[in-house]
Amino acid sequence: MTQTLSTTPAADGFWMPAEYEPHAGCWMLWPERADNWREAARPAQFAFVGVATAIAQFEPVTVGVSAAHYEIARTFLPPSVRVVELAHDDSWMRDVGPTFVVNKRRDVRGVDWHFNAWGGLNGGLYFPWDQDDLVARKVLEVENRDRYRSAIINEGGALHVDGEGTVLVTEECLLNANRNPHLNREQIEEQLRAYLGVSTVIWLGKGVFNDETDGHVDNLACFIRPGEIALGWTDNKRDVQHAISLDAWERLQDAVDARGRKLKVHKLPMPRPLSISAKEAAGVVSREGTKARPAGERLAGSYVNFYIANGGVVMPLLDPRTDKEAAAKLKRLFPDRRVVGVPAREVLLGGGNIHCITQQVPAGKH
Amino acid sequence: MTQTLSTTPAADGFWMPAEYEPHAGCWMLWPERADNWREAARPAQFAFVGVATAIAQFEPVTVGVSAAHYEIARTFLPPSVRVVELAHDDSWMRDVGPTFVVNKRRDVRGVDWHFNAWGGLNGGLYFPWDQDDLVARKVLEVENRDRYRSAIINEGGALHVDGEGTVLVTEECLLNANRNPHLNREQIEEQLRAYLGVSTVIWLGKGVFNDETDGHVDNLACFIRPGEIALGWTDNKRDVQHAISLDAWERLQDAVDARGRKLKVHKLPMPRPLSISAKEAAGVVSREGTKARPAGERLAGSYVNFYIANGGVVMPLLDPRTDKEAAAKLKRLFPDRRVVGVPAREVLLGGGNIHCITQQVPAGKH
Repeated sequence: MTQTLSTTPAADGFWMPAEYEPHAGCWMLWPERADNWREAARPAQFAFVGVATAIAQFEPVTVGVSAAHYEIARTFLPPSVRVVELAHDDSWMRDVGPTFVVNKRRDVRGVDWHFNAWGGLNGGLYFPWDQDDLVARKVLEVENRDRYRSAIINEGGALHVDGEGTVLVTEECLLNANRNPHLNREQIEEQLRAYLGVSTVIWLGKGVFNDETDGHVDNLACFIRPGEIALGWTDNKRDVQHAISLDAWERLQDAVDARGRKLKVHKLPMPRPLSISAKEAAGVVSREGTKARPAGERLAGSYVNFYIANGGVVMPLLDPRTDKEAAAKLKRLFPDRRVVGVPAREVLLGGGNIHCITQQVPAGKH
Repeated sequence: MTQTLSTTPAADGFWMPAEYEPHAGCWMLWPERADNWREAARPAQFAFVGVATAIAQFEPVTVGVSAAHYEIARTFLPPSVRVVELAHDDSWMRDVGPTFVVNKRRDVRGVDWHFNAWGGLNGGLYFPWDQDDLVARKVLEVENRDRYRSAIINEGGALHVDGEGTVLVTEECLLNANRNPHLNREQIEEQLRAYLGVSTVIWLGKGVFNDETDGHVDNLACFIRPGEIALGWTDNKRDVQHAISLDAWERLQDAVDARGRKLKVHKLPMPRPLSISAKEAAGVVSREGTKARPAGERLAGSYVNFYIANGGVVMPLLDPRTDKEAAAKLKRLFPDRRVVGVPAREVLLGGGNIHCITQQVPAGKH
């Protein structure tokens, strides 16, 4: 019995737990589109296999795949990963999957945000997105969890919570005219309070430079535990990213979380500016209505785009010149977890990274 | 972690429990093909909704549906029924779904028979059947159950077990040249012993007259408890069905089950001969390679094609002239269960009935 509820999580005593709280498992999707992923998505598929395999060391992983790709996904993914049929328009489970919420009894439910491919017909990345918009519902059916259908357009990557009443978002995304132009900042906050069970909204300005999601916070900054944040950082003042990170830093210095704490901000070094090569760009089949992948375009690479698993952190490897420093920093930030790096340039080429392609299911009771 | 095992259920101490043992739930599929179901399958969909709703009173029901039909199925089915995306070539979960087996600890696993649409290119009902052949595997992934991939072509409707070592089959189906022509009777028995964990195979001759599955036993006879069988019966000697039922009766009189018991056979009256009307036939879009539905063709109607649920029996209503008598008889045969009738002519028009479109998952531990 899975119902669509007409109430809100907050009204029912539910809230979104933090990613660092215990998980029942993790959902992903299988990359398929040749107009976003080069070489018919084969290199991306291998990268996703790497991510799924890494996470499966820590918790159960389920990968959703279209009927047409089912057998190939089942063949490439290890037996430790569950594969279920699940149509989608692209493979960003963070954004199209449910945002899970829990209550004091650890009942688990899911929020199914409206989805418009990061901007709809006004800057969205492809058309149509109807199958994406069904993903959260289908995941909740498989999980046997009740569903809240939020009225607003939103994506899981646009928010990070501390599990204690605070949510972190960016103005670039949440206040973008291509999401919910009929709602002002206060009304957006009201929706976040209602659907995430938070009391405090911390607003950053812009997300990572040239992030095509309109600045999802999950590529720039995240909670690593209550009161502490990892922020993507560069000291290079000639990099346009510097001003963005500095602005976020300053806002975070001024911020107070839901429990009244000042935040401790850890700078996580970003990779040097990365861009898509001519060869990589040539492997993408361009298509009208889908975002182009021109050679030389800067990629929104960030080590903040990691996934926190039970006992682990799965981080993207993006550049041998900076991977080690980032991994060392993450190990210091997560002393009780095993940090595992996975080659993720192919994920980055498609427009996101490990956090964007995953969605945790909190541990709960059935 | 769902594995495909290279052993057999019997070797691992597993066997198929009887349908009258406790269930964890029931799986079905959504009818979609316009070349088998009249009027683009809409009347069949309503009939399937009736069946799913009836079973959901007794146990959890999951319906698999293609991506294209997901929203309409979710709209028509009640919230008490779970809907998951699951491509298929047609909607006979009994035949394409896994045959579940258990061991003494009530671990549950599934047998994934090879499937060839009831005869492949030699009398099969449609081409291709590749999506059907993936259904069992996909169900097992959703269920998180390990899988045995049987070497033989077989269908769940071709067998009925008593849960105590006996399986009931028909020669017409299991020995048909369009299934496993390279295996003789003894070799087929060996496969049934290995994959169903049985020791005794009881062979009936033919199935119900004009049953396009090549005489599936589940339309003619089934165990209602250990040592007792319900057999579809007609006293009308001018009906070709009479000789078939009589032959089955005589074989059952001679049979001894795995525990050494003689069988008690209960005659369950069949409906009078039913056939597809011109109007009904006209609603089917004929297609090369798919079995035709000519007006006037006799339908393989049988009240034996019921589903035993937890505490219930869900039976097909086929003809007001005979439904009540069949229901009364079933109530006597199942005094501890609630007998629920569901209008099922639309299911019959597609070539089977309630048992054919369902597959039970035995209760077990996870």
